Amino acid sequence: MSENQFDKKSQAWSALFSEPMSELVKRYTASVDFDKRLWQADIAGSLAHAEMLAAQKVIADQDYADIQRGMAQIRADIESGKFEWKLELEDVHLNIEARLTQLVGDAGKRLHTGRSRNDQVATDVRLWLRGEIDEIAVLLVEMQNALLSVAERHTETVMPGYTHLQVAQPISFAHHLLAYVEMFARDAERLADVRKRVNRLPLGAAALAGTSYPLDRERVARTLGFDGVCQNSLDAVSDRDFAIEFSSFASIVMIHVSRMAEEIVLWMNQNFGYVDLSDRYCSGSSIMPQKRNPDVAELARGKSGRVVGHLMALITLMKGQPLTYNKDNQEDKEPLFDTVDTVKDTLRIMAEMVGGEVDAATGARSGGLTAKPDAMERAAKRGYATATDLADYLVRKGVPFRDAHEVVAHAVKVGIDSGKDLSELPLDVLQGFHASIGQDVYDVLTLQGSLNARQVIGGTAPVEARRQIARHRGRLE
Amino acid sequence: MSENQFDKKSQAWSALFSEPMSELVKRYTASVDFDKRLWQADIAGSLAHAEMLAAQKVIADQDYADIQRGMAQIRADIESGKFEWKLELEDVHLNIEARLTQLVGDAGKRLHTGRSRNDQVATDVRLWLRGEIDEIAVLLVEMQNALLSVAERHTETVMPGYTHLQVAQPISFAHHLLAYVEMFARDAERLADVRKRVNRLPLGAAALAGTSYPLDRERVARTLGFDGVCQNSLDAVSDRDFAIEFSSFASIVMIHVSRMAEEIVLWMNQNFGYVDLSDRYCSGSSIMPQKRNPDVAELARGKSGRVVGHLMALITLMKGQPLTYNKDNQEDKEPLFDTVDTVKDTLRIMAEMVGGEVDAATGARSGGLTAKPDAMERAAKRGYATATDLADYLVRKGVPFRDAHEVVAHAVKVGIDSGKDLSELPLDVLQGFHASIGQDVYDVLTLQGSLNARQVIGGTAPVEARRQIARHRGRLE
Amino acid sequence: MSENQFDKKSQAWSALFSEPMSELVKRYTASVDFDKRLWQADIAGSLAHAEMLAAQKVIADQDYADIQRGMAQIRADIESGKFEWKLELEDVHLNIEARLTQLVGDAGKRLHTGRSRNDQVATDVRLWLRGEIDEIAVLLVEMQNALLSVAERHTETVMPGYTHLQVAQPISFAHHLLAYVEMFARDAERLADVRKRVNRLPLGAAALAGTSYPLDRERVARTLGFDGVCQNSLDAVSDRDFAIEFSSFASIVMIHVSRMAEEIVLWMNQNFGYVDLSDRYCSGSSIMPQKRNPDVAELARGKSGRVVGHLMALITLMKGQPLTYNKDNQEDKEPLFDTVDTVKDTLRIMAEMVGGEVDAATGARSGGLTAKPDAMERAAKRGYATATDLADYLVRKGVPFRDAHEVVAHAVKVGIDSGKDLSELPLDVLQGFHASIGQDVYDVLTLQGSLNARQVIGGTAPVEARRQIARHRGRLE
Amino acid sequence: MSENQFDKKSQAWSALFSEPMSELVKRYTASVDFDKRLWQADIAGSLAHAEMLAAQKVIADQDYADIQRGMAQIRADIESGKFEWKLELEDVHLNIEARLTQLVGDAGKRLHTGRSRNDQVATDVRLWLRGEIDEIAVLLVEMQNALLSVAERHTETVMPGYTHLQVAQPISFAHHLLAYVEMFARDAERLADVRKRVNRLPLGAAALAGTSYPLDRERVARTLGFDGVCQNSLDAVSDRDFAIEFSSFASIVMIHVSRMAEEIVLWMNQNFGYVDLSDRYCSGSSIMPQKRNPDVAELARGKSGRVVGHLMALITLMKGQPLTYNKDNQEDKEPLFDTVDTVKDTLRIMAEMVGGEVDAATGARSGGLTAKPDAMERAAKRGYATATDLADYLVRKGVPFRDAHEVVAHAVKVGIDSGKDLSELPLDVLQGFHASIGQDVYDVLTLQGSLNARQVIGGTAPVEARRQIARHRGRLE
Repeated sequence: MSENQFDKKSQAWSALFSEPMSELVKRYTASVDFDKRLWQADIAGSLAHAEMLAAQKVIADQDYADIQRGMAQIRADIESGKFEWKLELEDVHLNIEARLTQLVGDAGKRLHTGRSRNDQVATDVRLWLRGEIDEIAVLLVEMQNALLSVAERHTETVMPGYTHLQVAQPISFAHHLLAYVEMFARDAERLADVRKRVNRLPLGAAALAGTSYPLDRERVARTLGFDGVCQNSLDAVSDRDFAIEFSSFASIVMIHVSRMAEEIVLWMNQNFGYVDLSDRYCSGSSIMPQKRNPDVAELARGKSGRVVGHLMALITLMKGQPLTYNKDNQEDKEPLFDTVDTVKDTLRIMAEMVGGEVDAATGARSGGLTAKPDAMERAAKRGYATATDLADYLVRKGVPFRDAHEVVAHAVKVGIDSGKDLSELPLDVLQGFHASIGQDVYDVLTLQGSLNARQVIGGTAPVEARRQIARHRGRLE
Repeated sequence: MSENQFDKKSQAWSALFSEPMSELVKRYTASVDFDKRLWQADIAGSLAHAEMLAAQKVIADQDYADIQRGMAQIRADIESGKFEWKLELEDVHLNIEARLTQLVGDAGKRLHTGRSRNDQVATDVRLWLRGEIDEIAVLLVEMQNALLSVAERHTETVMPGYTHLQVAQPISFAHHLLAYVEMFARDAERLADVRKRVNRLPLGAAALAGTSYPLDRERVARTLGFDGVCQNSLDAVSDRDFAIEFSSFASIVMIHVSRMAEEIVLWMNQNFGYVDLSDRYCSGSSIMPQKRNPDVAELARGKSGRVVGHLMALITLMKGQPLTYNKDNQEDKEPLFDTVDTVKDTLRIMAEMVGGEVDAATGARSGGLTAKPDAMERAAKRGYATATDLADYLVRKGVPFRDAHEVVAHAVKVGIDSGKDLSELPLDVLQGFHASIGQDVYDVLTLQGSLNARQVIGGTAPVEARRQIARHRGRLE
Repeated sequence: MSENQFDKKSQAWSALFSEPMSELVKRYTASVDFDKRLWQADIAGSLAHAEMLAAQKVIADQDYADIQRGMAQIRADIESGKFEWKLELEDVHLNIEARLTQLVGDAGKRLHTGRSRNDQVATDVRLWLRGEIDEIAVLLVEMQNALLSVAERHTETVMPGYTHLQVAQPISFAHHLLAYVEMFARDAERLADVRKRVNRLPLGAAALAGTSYPLDRERVARTLGFDGVCQNSLDAVSDRDFAIEFSSFASIVMIHVSRMAEEIVLWMNQNFGYVDLSDRYCSGSSIMPQKRNPDVAELARGKSGRVVGHLMALITLMKGQPLTYNKDNQEDKEPLFDTVDTVKDTLRIMAEMVGGEVDAATGARSGGLTAKPDAMERAAKRGYATATDLADYLVRKGVPFRDAHEVVAHAVKVGIDSGKDLSELPLDVLQGFHASIGQDVYDVLTLQGSLNARQVIGGTAPVEARRQIARHRGRLE
Repeated sequence: MSENQFDKKSQAWSALFSEPMSELVKRYTASVDFDKRLWQADIAGSLAHAEMLAAQKVIADQDYADIQRGMAQIRADIESGKFEWKLELEDVHLNIEARLTQLVGDAGKRLHTGRSRNDQVATDVRLWLRGEIDEIAVLLVEMQNALLSVAERHTETVMPGYTHLQVAQPISFAHHLLAYVEMFARDAERLADVRKRVNRLPLGAAALAGTSYPLDRERVARTLGFDGVCQNSLDAVSDRDFAIEFSSFASIVMIHVSRMAEEIVLWMNQNFGYVDLSDRYCSGSSIMPQKRNPDVAELARGKSGRVVGHLMALITLMKGQPLTYNKDNQEDKEPLFDTVDTVKDTLRIMAEMVGGEVDAATGARSGGLTAKPDAMERAAKRGYATATDLADYLVRKGVPFRDAHEVVAHAVKVGIDSGKDLSELPLDVLQGFHASIGQDVYDVLTLQGSLNARQVIGGTAPVEARRQIARHRGRLE
């Protein structure tokens, strides 16, 4: 076994260099501190490449066997924490390859045949990201199930529906939660679309121009579960649009989370009091003994900033870069890693806070968000939420809509001045606004009456909410 | 026909208001200056809604006929520039509805039955955006065709392939352009995915809770060519994730454009001189008589900032908003409009600058980018681009790769010191580096030899570039 | 007078061009549609340049007189709307210069001596922006005065102070508003700092390298009121950091506005009901007769996105640009213009909505925000806001703070369970928590007692709030 | 010494909580992993607070002595790596306070009197950031000195000045570098302005409303070197505009760095070859033996994205937050920390790469960027850089500028067609363009002649560049 060139990095480069890299530069340019989390993808990619090299007779079967043996050892060492990561070996790729060569000699040196770090790192990132996408997809299902588990208890729980944060019309709490199910369902669709573009194999592009070795790229793609191979080597090593697209997906998820979090914070405020959270998701204050703060929701809302910032970082990074690989691209990893971590943690904790912890054995949920129907209903009665229903009532009695609208506005004014809801005004007072009003008006002025009336697809009627819940349950099974 | 309530806006609202909106507020909150461009979508949406109302017997057939007649008149007036847009009517919706009522009386007043501006504007924006998406899809095809038209003339034109903007390995100009074809092809895929989520019908959600009228939402969706209806009314009127997703698509396209533009600017620099642009795409200087500036490419690169800014604006806009519709959402339109305009103009002009103007009759192209193969080849010879090929040659002679790498580095050093390319070093000098080197080494040291060797899928060999061009041509037909 | 070269744009460039610019390119690259708003700065800059050229004997006094005469005519034409802006003359500069030459002949052609559009546009933008900065500074004073005018009526109005949107401790409404005065005061400081860096003269840098004419740059700077001249010609024509810095200032102002707007929207919600807005700042709904929406506040909050987007656009624009002027820079104007407009409109309307319209004659304010002290006080009683005061009471009785904290937590628990505030619990019940509690405890459990206790600088005590108001009034005079 | 409540976190909160925080929530909400870097600021702030409490007789002198002793121990433990950071104690503040109480008992429990974590963390971040600002100020001076050290060797080194990356006019390399000195000088001004607003003391604001203890906030401010105290307690604990403003400063610095980096990358390209970097700042390739890549410059350019992303994160974070402290704000730290690290590392390494390493003893510089005057001059001759000078020559001979411009354009065209520079055209050919041309024309057609002519302030003449260098040297001493 010949000398290991990796022992001195400058040697791995070449005789062209008259002095070693400065320590400052080593620290500035090394990525192993963060890219070592790609180690599983790196090993998987290397094994698939080696298997193909052997199949194509570029390396001997014995080489492949040696590489397999060495990688098994490395895997075990990393998992047990014994593997020594070296800053001077720059990145996860050289760290693993150098160790492999130590372990298995010449076979290790043959692994890099027809490959470059440029296509290797692009492959690793895609493999790793695909795995994370699949985990996020599961978390999005859990989030939807958590929302559905609360929604199905509240198809008849009335709360005020808001526009402009002003009471608009009565809706059910279930209907409100179902809006978020729709958002997360779309996020899941988007994620599936992103996955298609992530799941293509760059390996074989080599440094930038392809390689003269008779590689079977399709075989490697099959081995690693890629949907296909990148069809242009320059593009394969230099573009990061898949990372931007994923970050854009992540930003949209976090914007949806931020809206839900905003509402939970609002609903926990003493003036609302619409919901309560389990103590395990709240924090207190070290100086104000009465405090129970919805920290998790606030932090989730705040973390949307972080993910959006990473999207901006990636876009700024790529803007105006000439082809092909430039060192700038190394900066794609930290934003991507932190985005994945943040989205996963946030989805998991928000799903649990809303839907409760799921008992693995029984599937039972405990500790989720508790709705407070009384407070919701009280609030729904405070803002003349059924004014539209009164107008519709008048239209059915033959009054033109614009006139009806005007009549109701007068009634609301009287209600405000006397501190009464429309349903609390006596019939003679109501008839003073319009003669066509009869005793049956009180049916439409109730919150329940208003709710039941809106049976259109996607409307707030309990019957429709139940239909939607069933549809979602079927879809998510 | 009763009085038109739209004549005084405060009347359209209600008796609750004791004073009119201030002039400052009117100007601050009105959107008609920019949202009037939605007029076609607004009319189409209204007609589909009216058709359904008539089919459902909510309005009379005569009402529908009147509405059709009124809308035809309005359409004609807008197209001829006679339509008077009024700021005090706030937006495109009230402007058109008010005029309709003037023209056809009570039928006009019945149009808004079971509808609100909240679901109406969401529908209009989606309809409009879908149309723009379809136009952008065509422009993306044109861009790819423009690139292919140049690429097919240059599968054997050698230029230096760069990593780190340092000469790396020889590639063909065709291969380089094909990298951009891949990018724009992915952009087109992404756009098709965005379209699916844009193309869902919010109409029927009414203000926020659905409506009590027996609307047939599916019928309206079919009439307007939507793929389906939004399944939750709160979500339908309040989310704008489709706009964020579209803007994210647009940002990625513009990042791709910015990279291509950066390269064109570079290639036009006198030190490169790789390409020339037609005069019609250049500007001169009013004080420097020799200047020919690639203004269009620079401006396209700069405009990526604008589109990215709009993406950030939309994200910031939505972050932390409670459900459902808030006035903040009105701010979604200007960024979206400008994004669409910028992407369309930029794609059109860049495609034309690269591929030339297409004669509508003959399909012939004139005035596109001109490659300068001599300058490219000269540059490819300047950076030891075939050093990897010499290393590969030595490997084939039995030298281990890492040793071969070292040998070549020494040869390059001698080349630099003596100002000669590797292919210009005499055989005896080369043999001084390694005895196994023979006369046949000069074959691999040529740029053409290097190029032809990389026949792997996506590699730079002319035969592969031609295969890829054929594939793209087939795909785009 | 010789032929006017501006009549044909390609001629203004040179014989180098074999074909005219395409129509598409003209439209894509022209800026006159938006940069014509710089006309006043452009004329002022040209006159100062011409005055200096005459003083330096580069042009004749008669030339300067002719230029003055021509510019007076152009100014009058623009003000009266008679000036014809031509797209084919690209920008505001060429439009004005071409017209000047039409009007005064050779003198017009001498104006551009020692100047280029590169330093001219940089000068115009800075002159224009300086004027806008001075207007924004006034609006920031108006905003602070508006807040103070409400605050001084409410130094004793108690409301709940929130952390985590949970009731924390009682504060005064004045104290709350004074927090925003601090923010806008800092914004004004920041703006003054930005102004220093905007107010430097680029003129004299010419195209990029300076000029061989004996210009007196300091004289031009004095004439135009600049604090000094840019000391490097390359930097003068190529950097736009002043625009980024201004946009950053603007983003921070808008973030402050967005927070105030968020609170106003919240306070208008029926569950809060802390404030009311004049009808002139609200809008209603065309289908829900009871609605009064705080549209202005919502839109102001939404417009923060727009300004932040422009900041990102400018940053993206400049990133990675090589020196010196590149056409990308033309994209600096629209974001900057829209940022200025948005900040001015928003500050003006928010100041008026909060503090009311100011009668120009009497200085009296009418129509501002109305506080609802009863609702605020009711809410302050709902969240155990004086729990900290009870703990402090116990500390004064000798109980260690952490024990006191624990005791109070138990008391709060009993309060919650029985639906009573701490001040509503009978003495014997309170004594059950700790024996040291006496009748005097009820003094500290009142909201007013809690408020008065916090007299530290910046604390919520009425006496401190009045001191702060007096300080601000003095500062703003 | 009584029991330490910090032993169980839920106890530090209160009896209100019926269950402990879940592990997932602990991990999600804890900040100690990253905020422990604030430990020095935290201790300094606590000591200043304790000193004041003792001076105000709120605590005993012995308490202050105990606290000093305990903090000395904690400082020693942290510095030696023995301090045990506990996740369950959430953050740096509770970790240190809990340990202090362990070490010194009741005195430790008295430290938090009149203080809350809300004002404590705001104080810590400001103290820490002020220290970092002062370090960055030094690095900005070093960067300017590095540029000056190269510039003073190259006041007569001619290179092409570019607009649109097209050769425009000759400039000196010194002049080009001085443009960056101006940018970094402005950055330093901006930083000094940011410092003023960072350097105000929040401590004393307590949780949000101030405190009832007789604190002397001005004393604490003096002890800690703050310029003054925050004048409103709500504002003090809730705003983070100083962090946004700092991030905006940092983004502008990084944009300037990105432009310089872009140029270095360009200049290292083989077609340019204007500069060379020391090997210690370059990296090679493991497969292409000839590569020497300007990794540091590329990475610095890429890292601008990261810093801009953090700015966007902070803005998104704060947008629309109601007062006062919300948990969202915890997300301010990681972006700020990483921004500071990135700016410091990048300035240090770029200054060293340009100006070389400075020998601490002698002040001698070694290993900086090497200019290649021959390549620069060759390039300056390639783009008709002195065309403007020929036009100016003709103007001096009495030809109107626009006619002169046209004449020169024709000459350039002939030059291009014959592959000659203007200075290489024979006199009779030049006279063919205009009869007034004489033998003296060759003086103005030289690069040196062109350079020397531009002596205006900020112009490229060597005499002016030397004057500017002297000015900067004086300023930076």
